[in-house]
Amino acid sequence: METHISFDDMMAMEKRQRTNLVNSAGGFKSVCLVGTKDKQSKTNLAVFNSIIHIGASPPLIAFIVRPDSVERHTLFNILETGYYTINHLNEKIYKQGHQTSARYPKEVSEFEAVGLSEDYKDGFLAPYVKESNVQFGVQFKERLDLTINGTILIIGQIDHLYFPKNCMHEDSFLDLEKANTITCSGLDSYHKTHRLERLSYAKPDKELETIGLN
Amino acid sequence: METHISFDDMMAMEKRQRTNLVNSAGGFKSVCLVGTKDKQSKTNLAVFNSIIHIGASPPLIAFIVRPDSVERHTLFNILETGYYTINHLNEKIYKQGHQTSARYPKEVSEFEAVGLSEDYKDGFLAPYVKESNVQFGVQFKERLDLTINGTILIIGQIDHLYFPKNCMHEDSFLDLEKANTITCSGLDSYHKTHRLERLSYAKPDKELETIGLN
Repeated sequence: METHISFDDMMAMEKRQRTNLVNSAGGFKSVCLVGTKDKQSKTNLAVFNSIIHIGASPPLIAFIVRPDSVERHTLFNILETGYYTINHLNEKIYKQGHQTSARYPKEVSEFEAVGLSEDYKDGFLAPYVKESNVQFGVQFKERLDLTINGTILIIGQIDHLYFPKNCMHEDSFLDLEKANTITCSGLDSYHKTHRLERLSYAKPDKELETIGLN
Repeated sequence: METHISFDDMMAMEKRQRTNLVNSAGGFKSVCLVGTKDKQSKTNLAVFNSIIHIGASPPLIAFIVRPDSVERHTLFNILETGYYTINHLNEKIYKQGHQTSARYPKEVSEFEAVGLSEDYKDGFLAPYVKESNVQFGVQFKERLDLTINGTILIIGQIDHLYFPKNCMHEDSFLDLEKANTITCSGLDSYHKTHRLERLSYAKPDKELETIGLN
């Protein structure tokens, strides 16, 4: 038996219920902390679950910002300084990560408020999250305004990538389970993963094979 | 100990290795089959792992298309007819889903080639995947060309949403594990999930609580 919910049904739902439904229905998502600072070196940290791979050559990553939310501090800092970090959530820090979504005043750094540590390395301006195992140093490249609902797509180039030794397979695939990275669904649900398998490159008339579990 | 890979290191990598690294580094992703048909009613099915939530009111969902890949058939059909379906992969069909990424000629329907069934309901033009448990009927709304690397963001409005009965929590959160939805990382790695917990809405100076595990 299946449930059918139409566009009209969704629009008739109470706002919070609709938000929960549509956010969770899209599937499992990458969940990361975006670290920034403003020109006065005040730091900011915010959780995002709309990270998207844009391309590998050059390496580009993007996420969606809602300017009417706490995310506006992140946006402001990125546009002001041009640099930010993206840090994977893991099992040890997902609660602190979730807590960064509280509406702290601008003068409060979420690093301090939730108990995560700023990390600076290789001369990069923006703060990494020390407790995160997979970290990107990102250079802002482009902002695309989605006029359809007022959100903004922020595209950046990956200038630095850090991850724990022994997490990379021979073909350069990064084993996120070894790095303890988790996933999320909806606005508030956090999940560990268990690999089913990696599958070989698909070709017509060729059987798929399990590849390199390392 | 950590590994550091810079932008220059990435650009110096062999193409396939760089693609694996950057695709996997972004985190776990939603993995779905996009079903379309052209004006001659020839169907097409393609796997996408760049699904992104755009907003809940109205309900909008998007994904990235690479026009130089097999994905161009999907793009062509969406622009020609204005409608498509998005269908979650689950544990039973992820191999068939992966196989849709093979370069079949335009006259071959991937539904038939990989052994998945077309499903039509509620008068919607595009084919759903019968074996998928969470299905969207989507109306094309907007195309945004990302000039930075030639990819295209396709934004659509969710006209219909289907999922198995008993998968929705009281607050309208959809329990994807109950629906058997899986996640992916990189280009070829498929994963089951295990919920850690759902966390309450974050507020400054308030402890987070575990909420509604249903």
